[in-house]
Amino acid sequence: MTTARVAYTAPRTLELRNDTPAAPPPSGHVTIEVAYTGICGTDLHIYHGAMDARVDPPQVIGHEMSGRVAATAPDVTGWEAGDHVTVMPLVPCGECPACRSGHRHICHRLVFLGIDATGSLQSRWTVPAHTLVRLPDDLPLDHAALAEPTAVAVHDVRRAELREGEKTLIVGGGPIGLLIALVARRGGAELLLVEPDPYRRATAESLGLATLDPTAADVVQAVTDWTGGAGADVAFEVSGAAAGVTTAVDALATRGRLVQVAIHPEPREISLHRFFWRELTLLGARLYGRDDFEAAVGLIAEGHIPAATLISRIEPLDRAASAFQALEGGGVMKVLIDCRSGAEADTR
Amino acid sequence: MTTARVAYTAPRTLELRNDTPAAPPPSGHVTIEVAYTGICGTDLHIYHGAMDARVDPPQVIGHEMSGRVAATAPDVTGWEAGDHVTVMPLVPCGECPACRSGHRHICHRLVFLGIDATGSLQSRWTVPAHTLVRLPDDLPLDHAALAEPTAVAVHDVRRAELREGEKTLIVGGGPIGLLIALVARRGGAELLLVEPDPYRRATAESLGLATLDPTAADVVQAVTDWTGGAGADVAFEVSGAAAGVTTAVDALATRGRLVQVAIHPEPREISLHRFFWRELTLLGARLYGRDDFEAAVGLIAEGHIPAATLISRIEPLDRAASAFQALEGGGVMKVLIDCRSGAEADTR
Repeated sequence: MTTARVAYTAPRTLELRNDTPAAPPPSGHVTIEVAYTGICGTDLHIYHGAMDARVDPPQVIGHEMSGRVAATAPDVTGWEAGDHVTVMPLVPCGECPACRSGHRHICHRLVFLGIDATGSLQSRWTVPAHTLVRLPDDLPLDHAALAEPTAVAVHDVRRAELREGEKTLIVGGGPIGLLIALVARRGGAELLLVEPDPYRRATAESLGLATLDPTAADVVQAVTDWTGGAGADVAFEVSGAAAGVTTAVDALATRGRLVQVAIHPEPREISLHRFFWRELTLLGARLYGRDDFEAAVGLIAEGHIPAATLISRIEPLDRAASAFQALEGGGVMKVLIDCRSGAEADTR
Repeated sequence: MTTARVAYTAPRTLELRNDTPAAPPPSGHVTIEVAYTGICGTDLHIYHGAMDARVDPPQVIGHEMSGRVAATAPDVTGWEAGDHVTVMPLVPCGECPACRSGHRHICHRLVFLGIDATGSLQSRWTVPAHTLVRLPDDLPLDHAALAEPTAVAVHDVRRAELREGEKTLIVGGGPIGLLIALVARRGGAELLLVEPDPYRRATAESLGLATLDPTAADVVQAVTDWTGGAGADVAFEVSGAAAGVTTAVDALATRGRLVQVAIHPEPREISLHRFFWRELTLLGARLYGRDDFEAAVGLIAEGHIPAATLISRIEPLDRAASAFQALEGGGVMKVLIDCRSGAEADTR
């Protein structure tokens, strides 16, 4: 049996390969028949060549996935062929100061599967057994591929210590911004989502979320009006834009909390005076723990994440390259790649 | 009886006035015979003309003080002439969103006595009775004048939720930096204080604090070595310098907390990527609540604040102008003004 895989070989180049014989999983590992792999912003960054310092071409990327256990190493217990699973793609070292202080998900030497090591854009993926997260058998596997980004959202909302009724601003309405909104709404927050792209705003509104176009409205004034002059209790910065940071800081109430979700490669100018004056809090939030991941699976299984709306398209593995190009063009939310062979692809 | 007072009249100009007849305190107010008034960085900013938007010359400034109750309005209860007191110089509006959410000390319309209204650089000061904080009779009044800056330090350390044994970096060794160090040490923290000025470092070292000269050493490397590669659990930014912020951010451990104490009028470039990567927290901290103020009085009364070392000089009211000039020259830590008339000044 061979494995079909999509490898990043050079900036803007993905190659379909179909030539590696499948080896049995080594000690402590499990081989998964991958069903679906979602494409995220990080995958796009890799595709653009922006992360060549971490990836090692030709490399299979992808880390948002679902599938079924195909084979386990003899020393792996608790899993058997056919189990529906997703993967929490983190391999911490267990020895660094972050691991020793209980924050293994931000290990100083973290190996992130799909970036620092082989990912899931392939028909069979072999991973350490400790990364597996069980899925309910009746959860559609395409929906389950949203577990990883949903876990990010769960982690971000927990980092905010969001309380019921808190007025919450979400700056940025891509997949992670929307998932944060959905998780926060489930927690009882009142929401306003800021997003310049009309397609993304329309998607958010179709899910019952209030939105604002920052190119047409004064966001800080709108938040002031919405909150009776107080400002937002919590803001999530999910835009990655300098203006998004400024908006979030300026819109916060006294003692407001800003959760920094998006990646800002460059330093940003921040009004420390406003942090001082209003006693604001900035909280960096990255990835997730196992509890976040399991909570995410639960939210999807219980129907709190409208997966059918969030999944814009599903493309077969041999069209992965065009799927990446479609994501660049906008007008889509989440794109999944169906990683199964033709014969398997009928059996969702 | 007249009142001797020092008024800020124009940038770099303080005038001694001795001509206002003392009126009885109005409803809800108390008149204090001021003993000592400490000069702080904010007073220097006013003196330099940098806060003319808030002060109203000629204005008596000063807000770090101690004294005795001289007279009370008929409707004031709980206080009587002779009581030793200090003043928590905050008059919140009670109605704004910050007040309504329980954060009266950062009221949106806060009146800060000594900035937005008349201060304590005078022999008699009339204030709302709710601002009084009782002092033990046996606490020397010069030491008690440190209550206000000590309350700032107590508030900052509480905002950090500092735990015993945490490795703590203090960037800036002026009076507030030193007081934070002393309060944090009392709470069981392990400390390193960064300060370029040799006089300030020597003062800190005389109090048993470990110091580092950032012009001669690589602070981040020193913290890395000190913490076995982990980084500092907590940092206090008390320098007001752009480099101080960068140092504090770069020195923090995974999930480290940075308390922003100093005032930065200009936005600062902050590595949001590091906040994301290490899940750091930035906490703005401003002023204090009554619990902080009362805790500060307790710390001074119990001998945990080495007031004799921190108070570099005491000058009479008619030499206030030269005291301000001395503070500009450096080589002093805290300078107090003795606000009593000659006859009273013997009875500490």
